[in-house]
Amino acid sequence: MSSSVKPELLGGFRDLMPAEAYAQQQMFEKIRRVYESFGFMPLDTPGMERLDVLTGGSKDFEKSIFTARIIRGAEDRGVKDTDWEEAFAMRFDLTVPLARVVAANPELPRPFKRYQLGKVWRGEKPQSGRYREFWQFDFDIIGADSVDADIEVIQIMYETMKALGLSRFVVRYNTRKVLNGLAELVGCSNQATEFFRILDKADKLGVDGVIKALQRKSDNQYDTSLALSDEQAASVRSFLMLSGTDDVGTVDQLEQLFSDRTAIGRQGVSELRSIDAALDALGIPAENRRIDLSVARGLDYYTGPVFETVLLDLPQIGSVFSGGRFDGLTDRFIPGSNIAGVGASVGVDRLFVAMQQLGLLQLPDSITKVFVATQGADPAVKSAATQIAQSLRRQGINVECNLGNDPTLRAQMAYAAKRSIPYVVIIGADEVAKKSYVLKDMATRQQEVLTRDELSAKLATS
Amino acid sequence: MSSSVKPELLGGFRDLMPAEAYAQQQMFEKIRRVYESFGFMPLDTPGMERLDVLTGGSKDFEKSIFTARIIRGAEDRGVKDTDWEEAFAMRFDLTVPLARVVAANPELPRPFKRYQLGKVWRGEKPQSGRYREFWQFDFDIIGADSVDADIEVIQIMYETMKALGLSRFVVRYNTRKVLNGLAELVGCSNQATEFFRILDKADKLGVDGVIKALQRKSDNQYDTSLALSDEQAASVRSFLMLSGTDDVGTVDQLEQLFSDRTAIGRQGVSELRSIDAALDALGIPAENRRIDLSVARGLDYYTGPVFETVLLDLPQIGSVFSGGRFDGLTDRFIPGSNIAGVGASVGVDRLFVAMQQLGLLQLPDSITKVFVATQGADPAVKSAATQIAQSLRRQGINVECNLGNDPTLRAQMAYAAKRSIPYVVIIGADEVAKKSYVLKDMATRQQEVLTRDELSAKLATS
Repeated sequence: MSSSVKPELLGGFRDLMPAEAYAQQQMFEKIRRVYESFGFMPLDTPGMERLDVLTGGSKDFEKSIFTARIIRGAEDRGVKDTDWEEAFAMRFDLTVPLARVVAANPELPRPFKRYQLGKVWRGEKPQSGRYREFWQFDFDIIGADSVDADIEVIQIMYETMKALGLSRFVVRYNTRKVLNGLAELVGCSNQATEFFRILDKADKLGVDGVIKALQRKSDNQYDTSLALSDEQAASVRSFLMLSGTDDVGTVDQLEQLFSDRTAIGRQGVSELRSIDAALDALGIPAENRRIDLSVARGLDYYTGPVFETVLLDLPQIGSVFSGGRFDGLTDRFIPGSNIAGVGASVGVDRLFVAMQQLGLLQLPDSITKVFVATQGADPAVKSAATQIAQSLRRQGINVECNLGNDPTLRAQMAYAAKRSIPYVVIIGADEVAKKSYVLKDMATRQQEVLTRDELSAKLATS
Repeated sequence: MSSSVKPELLGGFRDLMPAEAYAQQQMFEKIRRVYESFGFMPLDTPGMERLDVLTGGSKDFEKSIFTARIIRGAEDRGVKDTDWEEAFAMRFDLTVPLARVVAANPELPRPFKRYQLGKVWRGEKPQSGRYREFWQFDFDIIGADSVDADIEVIQIMYETMKALGLSRFVVRYNTRKVLNGLAELVGCSNQATEFFRILDKADKLGVDGVIKALQRKSDNQYDTSLALSDEQAASVRSFLMLSGTDDVGTVDQLEQLFSDRTAIGRQGVSELRSIDAALDALGIPAENRRIDLSVARGLDYYTGPVFETVLLDLPQIGSVFSGGRFDGLTDRFIPGSNIAGVGASVGVDRLFVAMQQLGLLQLPDSITKVFVATQGADPAVKSAATQIAQSLRRQGINVECNLGNDPTLRAQMAYAAKRSIPYVVIIGADEVAKKSYVLKDMATRQQEVLTRDELSAKLATS
């Protein structure tokens, strides 16, 4: 016998204990119902993918990826160790697997509307509130070119947040076309990724900080600084300072700034106008959505509208629901296929923590409504207990019978009280003889003697 | 730019496309509802555990385990490569993680009733219908010593199968105590594991085959053959041939065979009697359960009752729902803790395939009930469409608006027909002006013109 093992988790991983796991599941159900109401259907892909599928075949990938190999049994079970380059790798998001599925299944309907709930893994350094395994709950529309799909995505984000009981939130949106327009205007389209990366920090750095970062001169030839001139910086400042009294006003000013100097920029303006008008028509309140020209979303695969969602009462936790348009995602599999995609992803763990802080989650000790307690060891009493329990379950009520090791009534009542179970049915030899049931309301501590039908009726309505 | 990557899965892994993924989710919901009706709550543990937690610290473990390591960023992101012995490892079941949680959280209620749904990974050689990643849906009762818990587990297995729409199935059960009694009777308790492994093959080998395997003499000193004598073999044969006209009759014969020659065996007899009587009292039909003395369940951690479930119409696929009592599972973490555990696990993938073959699964092309089609590019028409769609969604109806790239009515009708969407609402400038809606029933091909209230009422009841 080996010495004992410590019952420990790996660093960066965690358990969700029953109350939290139950609350999370309720949250998943609400999100799922909204996605399905728009006709989205689930997809399930493996936790492991080929490494080259995840990296796009590039050795210069962004994420820290968990790769896997099989230990033991390599010889005697016919498992061949694969080359490192073909390694098993844990998925780090649900978007790359979606792209693989779309590329491999050209017969899928267009538009293809799918949602996916699953865990993803990243080998980042663990930090407070940041794990190496986390949930994502994505929905995406594939093969829809029109801005109508972008509008539907924002609508779904709004409806999802409302369904979760949230009201003080803003879906902030922008479009990469506006940012591309700005890059064109400023003359740094060839360094667009770095330009957007800095712009995306407006929240943290403020306008002055962003301008400073954009004007920073390089220390050496390998540095990717933009080193904008004062004139270029002035254009960016005008852009970041744009703010009408409302979204239409902001877009009007943006149109003036771009005038006829950037075609892509003007396309962006037109996109923002379409989205704003459609959201108005849908009756989505102005306080829950805002055009925010500083929204860029870090990842460079976005090609059109980009979205993020912030909670007004917890702005520091960042976006809890983000996405955008990513036309061309299958290009890594089928060069030039240029298939349209737009969608968003709930940051499940972050949103869960936020909802917990806002008191919007029920974290029940128990989901049992009725505990059936027995007095005495008479098999007829036990039978009566399991029978009434099952008959109440058929009514849709969650019921527990006594499985504890202490058969006394006191121990059973203590269990029910500790688990906050609201009702206890007590059965002894007397009740079996009279075909009656004692029902105790644990909140009021009142007891009543009921027939089976009375018991059933009482518990159905209370 | 790297050359294109093939959109391929790893060997032994698979996708569940939308129709299957939806059907599987419906299956999960039904199982979950039964588990919850008995007061079980969910637990969520990580996909990765410490290797020593999974192996119990032993180098001689049974399963082929996927171990993981982090690639890229090891230096620049502060991630330290762990020693191989402390490696990240993918869980191969949900029972070991449960044992870890129970060992690490002594404050959990007793009995602790939890269910868990999750994927597990095994590095076995992929075969037809056998994957390296698969779902498990377990429920377990921790800290309940009494046979009442074993009875509840069988009851839950029965109720779950019924809830899934199955009726032609048998939950076969036995207890390890009976098998230990037989080993005692035969005099091979010191080689019990090997003895049970062979007995468990009675289904495949038949009685004669089992006897032959038990009597086989070893070829060399490393061989673990039992080499039973003819007299010993005769006892085993009597045991395997026991069969009363019903379960009570079988147990009566078993009691005679054991007489007073094995104490543990007599405990087993008493357990089987208790279970049989309780299942009678619960009204669980005799055709859905059977005492089967050949049921052993391969894993050697079972200590009491063991259960398995076979489908009468698909016996070749084996057990779809199995479990047993495993007192002492936390002993690897806390030596001598000897905490009681009993539960069962749905073989999700196997049961899914079986239900598909039995025609018990709905595999819908679409879950959308209403498609809202638009005629013309008038923004007022689009607004009317998205508005009525959202108002129907609020009624609980799944509704899609047109997101396709072809805006013609013909293309929209073709999409709805191809996706088998039962109703189409058609809106054009005329309908907007008159505040009316054309509703087309795709099955009858009939159209009618309705007011908004009529449309809502019609779709609510159809």
